[in-house]
Amino acid sequence: MSSTISDQLQNLGVTTFRPSNREADQMREVRITRHFTKHAEGSVLVEFGDTKVICTASVERGVPRFLRGSGSGWVTAEYGMLPRATGSRNGREAARGQQGGRTVEIQRLIGRSLRACMDLKKLGENTITIDCDVIQADGGTRTASITGAYVALRDAISFLKKDKHGAMKGDPVKCGLAAISVGIYNGKPVLDLDYAEDSSAETDMNVIMTSKGGFVEVQGTAEGEPYSQDELNAMLELAKKGISELCEMQEKALA
Amino acid sequence: MSSTISDQLQNLGVTTFRPSNREADQMREVRITRHFTKHAEGSVLVEFGDTKVICTASVERGVPRFLRGSGSGWVTAEYGMLPRATGSRNGREAARGQQGGRTVEIQRLIGRSLRACMDLKKLGENTITIDCDVIQADGGTRTASITGAYVALRDAISFLKKDKHGAMKGDPVKCGLAAISVGIYNGKPVLDLDYAEDSSAETDMNVIMTSKGGFVEVQGTAEGEPYSQDELNAMLELAKKGISELCEMQEKALA
Amino acid sequence: MSSTISDQLQNLGVTTFRPSNREADQMREVRITRHFTKHAEGSVLVEFGDTKVICTASVERGVPRFLRGSGSGWVTAEYGMLPRATGSRNGREAARGQQGGRTVEIQRLIGRSLRACMDLKKLGENTITIDCDVIQADGGTRTASITGAYVALRDAISFLKKDKHGAMKGDPVKCGLAAISVGIYNGKPVLDLDYAEDSSAETDMNVIMTSKGGFVEVQGTAEGEPYSQDELNAMLELAKKGISELCEMQEKALA
Amino acid sequence: MSSTISDQLQNLGVTTFRPSNREADQMREVRITRHFTKHAEGSVLVEFGDTKVICTASVERGVPRFLRGSGSGWVTAEYGMLPRATGSRNGREAARGQQGGRTVEIQRLIGRSLRACMDLKKLGENTITIDCDVIQADGGTRTASITGAYVALRDAISFLKKDKHGAMKGDPVKCGLAAISVGIYNGKPVLDLDYAEDSSAETDMNVIMTSKGGFVEVQGTAEGEPYSQDELNAMLELAKKGISELCEMQEKALA
Amino acid sequence: MSSTISDQLQNLGVTTFRPSNREADQMREVRITRHFTKHAEGSVLVEFGDTKVICTASVERGVPRFLRGSGSGWVTAEYGMLPRATGSRNGREAARGQQGGRTVEIQRLIGRSLRACMDLKKLGENTITIDCDVIQADGGTRTASITGAYVALRDAISFLKKDKHGAMKGDPVKCGLAAISVGIYNGKPVLDLDYAEDSSAETDMNVIMTSKGGFVEVQGTAEGEPYSQDELNAMLELAKKGISELCEMQEKALA
Amino acid sequence: MSSTISDQLQNLGVTTFRPSNREADQMREVRITRHFTKHAEGSVLVEFGDTKVICTASVERGVPRFLRGSGSGWVTAEYGMLPRATGSRNGREAARGQQGGRTVEIQRLIGRSLRACMDLKKLGENTITIDCDVIQADGGTRTASITGAYVALRDAISFLKKDKHGAMKGDPVKCGLAAISVGIYNGKPVLDLDYAEDSSAETDMNVIMTSKGGFVEVQGTAEGEPYSQDELNAMLELAKKGISELCEMQEKALA
Repeated sequence: MSSTISDQLQNLGVTTFRPSNREADQMREVRITRHFTKHAEGSVLVEFGDTKVICTASVERGVPRFLRGSGSGWVTAEYGMLPRATGSRNGREAARGQQGGRTVEIQRLIGRSLRACMDLKKLGENTITIDCDVIQADGGTRTASITGAYVALRDAISFLKKDKHGAMKGDPVKCGLAAISVGIYNGKPVLDLDYAEDSSAETDMNVIMTSKGGFVEVQGTAEGEPYSQDELNAMLELAKKGISELCEMQEKALA
Repeated sequence: MSSTISDQLQNLGVTTFRPSNREADQMREVRITRHFTKHAEGSVLVEFGDTKVICTASVERGVPRFLRGSGSGWVTAEYGMLPRATGSRNGREAARGQQGGRTVEIQRLIGRSLRACMDLKKLGENTITIDCDVIQADGGTRTASITGAYVALRDAISFLKKDKHGAMKGDPVKCGLAAISVGIYNGKPVLDLDYAEDSSAETDMNVIMTSKGGFVEVQGTAEGEPYSQDELNAMLELAKKGISELCEMQEKALA
Repeated sequence: MSSTISDQLQNLGVTTFRPSNREADQMREVRITRHFTKHAEGSVLVEFGDTKVICTASVERGVPRFLRGSGSGWVTAEYGMLPRATGSRNGREAARGQQGGRTVEIQRLIGRSLRACMDLKKLGENTITIDCDVIQADGGTRTASITGAYVALRDAISFLKKDKHGAMKGDPVKCGLAAISVGIYNGKPVLDLDYAEDSSAETDMNVIMTSKGGFVEVQGTAEGEPYSQDELNAMLELAKKGISELCEMQEKALA
Repeated sequence: MSSTISDQLQNLGVTTFRPSNREADQMREVRITRHFTKHAEGSVLVEFGDTKVICTASVERGVPRFLRGSGSGWVTAEYGMLPRATGSRNGREAARGQQGGRTVEIQRLIGRSLRACMDLKKLGENTITIDCDVIQADGGTRTASITGAYVALRDAISFLKKDKHGAMKGDPVKCGLAAISVGIYNGKPVLDLDYAEDSSAETDMNVIMTSKGGFVEVQGTAEGEPYSQDELNAMLELAKKGISELCEMQEKALA
Repeated sequence: MSSTISDQLQNLGVTTFRPSNREADQMREVRITRHFTKHAEGSVLVEFGDTKVICTASVERGVPRFLRGSGSGWVTAEYGMLPRATGSRNGREAARGQQGGRTVEIQRLIGRSLRACMDLKKLGENTITIDCDVIQADGGTRTASITGAYVALRDAISFLKKDKHGAMKGDPVKCGLAAISVGIYNGKPVLDLDYAEDSSAETDMNVIMTSKGGFVEVQGTAEGEPYSQDELNAMLELAKKGISELCEMQEKALA
Repeated sequence: MSSTISDQLQNLGVTTFRPSNREADQMREVRITRHFTKHAEGSVLVEFGDTKVICTASVERGVPRFLRGSGSGWVTAEYGMLPRATGSRNGREAARGQQGGRTVEIQRLIGRSLRACMDLKKLGENTITIDCDVIQADGGTRTASITGAYVALRDAISFLKKDKHGAMKGDPVKCGLAAISVGIYNGKPVLDLDYAEDSSAETDMNVIMTSKGGFVEVQGTAEGEPYSQDELNAMLELAKKGISELCEMQEKALA
């Protein structure tokens, strides 16, 4: 386990500046478990270290009103967090009667990103809804969600391919898709922030890319000091490395 | 897989009348996994066959307004189901902006039942909130929730016992507590209905009892034909057997 | 005033243990007034002592979406309480923008119970909505509601019978239906708890039965100590007696 | 009974143009029943013909935030209608999760009108909430509500007068208050419109006046053709007559 | 500018009793600017002194469900206020999740008034929605809204006249329409109350009339003392004068 | 009309590829009007071509609960759009009872960006709420909002500086702040997209920077094809140019 390695390194007097003792360009251990629950057409448990998200893909015939008769399909996402996925309990959104602003932002991001790797025309008039439910949070829930959601989406597409009445017109998946966070922590660019880093980072950036190296979304926010062009470049380099590793893991899981 | 075994049994002429080939008084396999997530003071994954519920207990100092200054603590529960815990996707309650009637009923039942095994005075002015989140449903989610919630509650109490500022006044747990469903299926009383049985049972009854054999709650509903006193008695006998087995498993898990 | 009488009785050494001086198996005075308001197809004022509920039955052509084209009808119920039906004013649910959990539970129970005495196929594609509105509360509002709602339902069925376009296929009413509360008060089983008893009873149980003696719903909750099998049996015996009396009164009112 | 009189008149060949055969300046039979329910400090059933409204007054110590420490009291009102108070069932506002625009308008009018006859300084820091719940509607529910609410308010004031801790500083009631509708029906001014008239009147006007003859509120709406100054004057004359009769009935009921 | 005139008057020792130094029967300066925004079929900025309201008219094909197939059109209105249109910031209604009672009342009044000058049959199955958004408030926002909305409505009608597919059957506008407030301020009847007057007036009355001199709506509320018949008459005289001037300005703006 | 001009230009062989005939690095005409409404401590009408937003800053004593006693102030923002700010009418969020996801995202972005140029400690326990209300939309409403909001914020700070009881501890404004959109349109990077471009751009990026050249937020979304690193760099260069021009205009307006 990496923490053991870092313990050994620390015993040798070799330390990194990150709370987890990871290298600046080192991701947490990532695990992708398919077929996690039994009902959904795609069901994936994705883990980025201690961040754990259940991503399920549900296939429904038909599309929302604005697409009816267009021949085009739809992919959308919803995001939630169990009340005690975090260090202290958050009120349940269903009980409060409203999804919070953060939830709304994240689920829109997930849906938009997934649609970017899809040819919705080829999907036919089917709707795939991806539910990303965080059961344990330790930073990076939105990037883990997108990375896991892509795998669940692929399983749902496989389900549709086998379905004679599914109305698909060829493979709607255009490319791979993954997401990772980068940031400036203690003045240095780092890859895949965990909660300890995220909560005190100067800059937090989420990068979503295709397996072909194109940017789908870049969202970089200065939490404290504004960041420079050089810092932006360094963060993007880290992100490219991480995305490339994640795309490989996704394909391995899907093999 | 059990269905294959039952197929083989049926080929051999050995059948029971239940879809799962269980005996009338046989529960599904029950698994209780403590410390399932890392943040909560109590966190239990409880499985009744394919029904899987995450039960977390969150401890907060202070009590709701109506108890302030009373010296008494509070135990409450919330219940939810991931949208695709079931065979077809249910709209997310947070997105619809309201908890459904079934959800409200179940979480009130869980909270009321848990309070029945507690001396709230001894708890001191602490609030324990139990979240029961169903990640996979196959019948009996409310009885699995109560059975798992009790274990999570016990872990939360242990946490409070170690806490010098916890304000507890002795052990607030008065007894064990578990819940099981019984019903009339195909004209016969059965224990622990799964979804296949539940959806076509004539009568569905949830029984919640203490480890000492007292009834905390009995809720028996005729879905089709009304049930007789004899049927009621037979169902209660089955329930007592099931509760007794569950209480043993809970203590074993807590040991 | 009855409390004065009971004081006098107590002075004479004649006491019962109930605040109302009723015998353990004695119901409050029950009154059933049909045609209470003029617009509804069925309109009943039901009184269990000081508990007063207006039950109206409204007939509408057509059924909810999930039944369209099935040939089957639907019976549903809604429950409400005037803000000052109780000792201190409760906030109006319409103003708060949400029905409370207790309201939701009760109206689901009423609807489910009424459907148990109906052959919905014979009702044809009609919907009967029963509104139970408590104008004065003194314990037992849900059992009074069900008992009165049954009478209003019967009047609505009579209305439909006379209606040539009503689409009914024979009499959909399978049997009589009434509800009564029982409980353990001061350690003894009692019938038809009023508010003074209900608020300090050890156990509160609502029993809904058909006129043929079958159980439609049993809901028994230990508010304090769990109850034993013997206590359960004793409460059910009382309930049977009460239900039988109520069914007689209903038929008399309908005659 | 007035309908008998009109029957007799009709037999004599004397008819009026109103569906109810009332004279243009004739109100429906008005009944005011105090102490209608037992819990509220004031409880009145008011009937304007077939329009029946329960008006209860609830006294609470303290005032809303914006008045705290001002020494002044508050009077407010809420309005509701049972779902089947009308010819066809209206969805329950509590179930829809919102009070309709009409409800909001009416309850603001009731509250504002009642405050106009009160010296809130003399009320002391008490809040009186008037609930007007229509159990049967036949036109004029808002004017019946105000007229009945005034009587309930007076009973609540009497309650406070007897209360040593009530903090009142003299009698806060400045004058009598009643409300009546007038309108242009079939081209002629009429008093106290019932539903048959209201639904096809050219103009509908609600007038609220004190017992001293001052106007508290005039709301006149042309439903079809605009109305002239002469018509306005004629309607106000009818209103004055009606208000004067109502104030007398109120005082008689309170005597 | 009128304030300069009043300054001069004051220098000359000639003063009126109004804070703005206006005469009792003098309106504020009224400005009507058409084509204020570019997208709407009708867009008007209306200013009554410092009260500024954007009124837009949006034309949509089709009508609400209750009118479908009737051949009749619909005119409706919505009203809003920017949070800082007033002296201190009011919470945004969209953020609070509900329109306040005052908003609901005003938008119902605007819609009802506009429909009074329309022949909806001639409009055909089109819906015109008028949005009145107050960007700066200084009293009289509802009367300014109605006055401006009428002009926007006229522009929308002109748009429909040019539209070959618009389904209109002749000119649906029956007459002009304007609204003005009057009141009793410092014991005297005044025309067009600004905020300084409105907030301390004894009586506040909104009058809506057609260009032909008919009353569409009169709403007069005694905020303090009830008002007499004479005061009512005096206020109506002032209103007639104001409405007549406003109707002229509207036609001039539309020319 | 500019399209005619561009047609003529194109006939002359002079073309740019943008619908507005702007150069790739050319912003629309920007206008900043201070003191637009009279009540707010800061009130700015900002126009980016046909996009028009009213930005008001409201100062309130005190801070939200989570900051009480911290000595720190708060800056927050709300965003809204008049229903007919756009080509077809959008339902009013207040009437629908909820702010949409897009609204929530934008107002969180505005608030976060403004806080990035503030030293909240120096602000003292004051809250400044910025309302950005779009009265006409033609693309870029969020960047116009931020740019205008900064000016309104500065005016609110000036108001607080003059206020002896304002509790400020020095100037809380750390630097200038502006926002601009960039994108890939027809395969080429462009500055300040209007609606015609925005609705068909391949990539849309919002950039928020300080006057010192630091990035506060970068949000770049591929609407169609993913974008490359080179395209990202080119867009950021355009953004820097635009921001620099905007910061100059802001200071000029504030001078």
